[in-house]
Amino acid sequence: MHILITGAGGMIGRKLVERLVRDGALGGKPIARMTLHDIVAPEAPAGAEFAVATRGGDIAAPGEAAALVADAPDVIFHLAAVVSGEAEADFDKGYRVNIDGMRYLLEAIRARQYKPRLVFTSSIAVLGGPLPDPVPDDFHLTPVNSYGTAKVICEQWLADYTRRGFIDGIGLRFPGITVRPGKPNKAASGFYSSIIREPLAGHEAILPVPTSKLNTHASPRAAVGFLIRAATIDGEKVGLRRNLFMPGVAVTVGEQIEALRRIAGGNVAKRIRHEPDETIMRIFPNDVVRIGAGRALALGFKPDKDFDEIIRIHIEEDLGGKFVA
Amino acid sequence: MHILITGAGGMIGRKLVERLVRDGALGGKPIARMTLHDIVAPEAPAGAEFAVATRGGDIAAPGEAAALVADAPDVIFHLAAVVSGEAEADFDKGYRVNIDGMRYLLEAIRARQYKPRLVFTSSIAVLGGPLPDPVPDDFHLTPVNSYGTAKVICEQWLADYTRRGFIDGIGLRFPGITVRPGKPNKAASGFYSSIIREPLAGHEAILPVPTSKLNTHASPRAAVGFLIRAATIDGEKVGLRRNLFMPGVAVTVGEQIEALRRIAGGNVAKRIRHEPDETIMRIFPNDVVRIGAGRALALGFKPDKDFDEIIRIHIEEDLGGKFVA
Repeated sequence: MHILITGAGGMIGRKLVERLVRDGALGGKPIARMTLHDIVAPEAPAGAEFAVATRGGDIAAPGEAAALVADAPDVIFHLAAVVSGEAEADFDKGYRVNIDGMRYLLEAIRARQYKPRLVFTSSIAVLGGPLPDPVPDDFHLTPVNSYGTAKVICEQWLADYTRRGFIDGIGLRFPGITVRPGKPNKAASGFYSSIIREPLAGHEAILPVPTSKLNTHASPRAAVGFLIRAATIDGEKVGLRRNLFMPGVAVTVGEQIEALRRIAGGNVAKRIRHEPDETIMRIFPNDVVRIGAGRALALGFKPDKDFDEIIRIHIEEDLGGKFVA
Repeated sequence: MHILITGAGGMIGRKLVERLVRDGALGGKPIARMTLHDIVAPEAPAGAEFAVATRGGDIAAPGEAAALVADAPDVIFHLAAVVSGEAEADFDKGYRVNIDGMRYLLEAIRARQYKPRLVFTSSIAVLGGPLPDPVPDDFHLTPVNSYGTAKVICEQWLADYTRRGFIDGIGLRFPGITVRPGKPNKAASGFYSSIIREPLAGHEAILPVPTSKLNTHASPRAAVGFLIRAATIDGEKVGLRRNLFMPGVAVTVGEQIEALRRIAGGNVAKRIRHEPDETIMRIFPNDVVRIGAGRALALGFKPDKDFDEIIRIHIEEDLGGKFVA
């Protein structure tokens, strides 16, 4: 089995690679090769018992996608994307990477004339508002930012190329990925992670929205689980509606902070400072309430148990079990 | 006021031009100029009291869209499209005209740095199924053919470019346009018109689907009315959800035939021959039931009264009041 990962240098990409290296197999088939792609060639993982090629390049540059699929990878995880805040700040860059990048990849696969499983990461940013609680699987898609717009467009292509028999695609609408380790990225939603991550590291965190703000979250570990499930699921069972809401844990920011206090104590939770930010509130005008994700649950996609578990996964996976009390 | 119409040589385009020539004004403002564009330069209409320029060219060819907006038309009707049957038969042509054509036009407007009212004709082909009756305005969009896919993608762009302030767009999800005069086009839905048009002209018509098949229709006259309304409506009233289902008349094929019998007599209705066509049934696997179109109705878009009226409009507009009994 040959696996290609775009955006492999990103947080989810790295965690997916770690998992695949650990498993050595995908869907019961041993991994023979892996190709890791990002704008800058990602580091090859340590300890892989299979060949790993790395490549740096712009997915939206002519020829790049064709080069990536030249050897016909069996499974492609297309994670490469410009995040929401940056896509809003730089319209052209967002459209080029998030829209044109997908089109180039699809066309390269079609030109290569084979039918890989293509796992695409979409997002709950496809939703506008106001939203019912829970949001049903068949709710309409009226995104309120350019990032969400790009995701809807890519979902449409994924479904049409699959229906036409050019690819075998599965699109996953990720909830917010929390807790995102390392440096903040340019995602406007970054605060959902930083209000947990920074206090645990002994730093102050800024909360730019009211504590009543609701969002739905999945840990990076759950997200990697979604990707693995999507790579191996029987496409026939999914049918022609290839884009699925992933199940998450729906909590308010206040409930996030409560969970942090339970797990790490009041001193840690006190490191969050409230500082309202109009720009961020404009990008997320609506609460994302619970996502039903009934289809995904029925298809065996597994969410985290609760937000406490999400914090514990961060402490275990990213902090070596320790935090600054 | 300067008006640009793409796809001006098509049936709706021609009827829109006739109406604008007759009115001499749009939204109370006199028309000073009109530019008509299609793949082959359309004929200039007779009797226009304003300047009419015509131009032939491929909307998806580099430079074409830029040339069309060079003089900054105030209102653009973007009707150019490859129809459903052809978009399904020729994937590349459909994507190029129906998707890339819109993107070129939007980018040309953005580069020209002005904000015209852009009226885009989408379609109920954005809907998949199964569908509730009536279909609410916020129903999800999971098209089952490449034509519908392209419409969803263009709608997304229209909404995002409007939100970003690059254009002032309104997208109209047209129901089936019936009765389509003249030669059949390559739309897979052509039979909805031909079973009325051909018998009225003394010819036999083929019905490729069961008489229980339900669809929602608007006359060309109503469709032109939708376009005019969309060109002149206050964008603020529409809000950020710029794509609207248009109201139609929902009838089964059997009810269409009953209406034909009422208006033209049993001899005419007998000219319809039932000959099931699997290809067409595959393109339209689901009945399109009533479209609620509550938003459009509240915004002043006016449907036909019933299917009898739709037939009468055809006899009056396209047949000079006569038919072959």
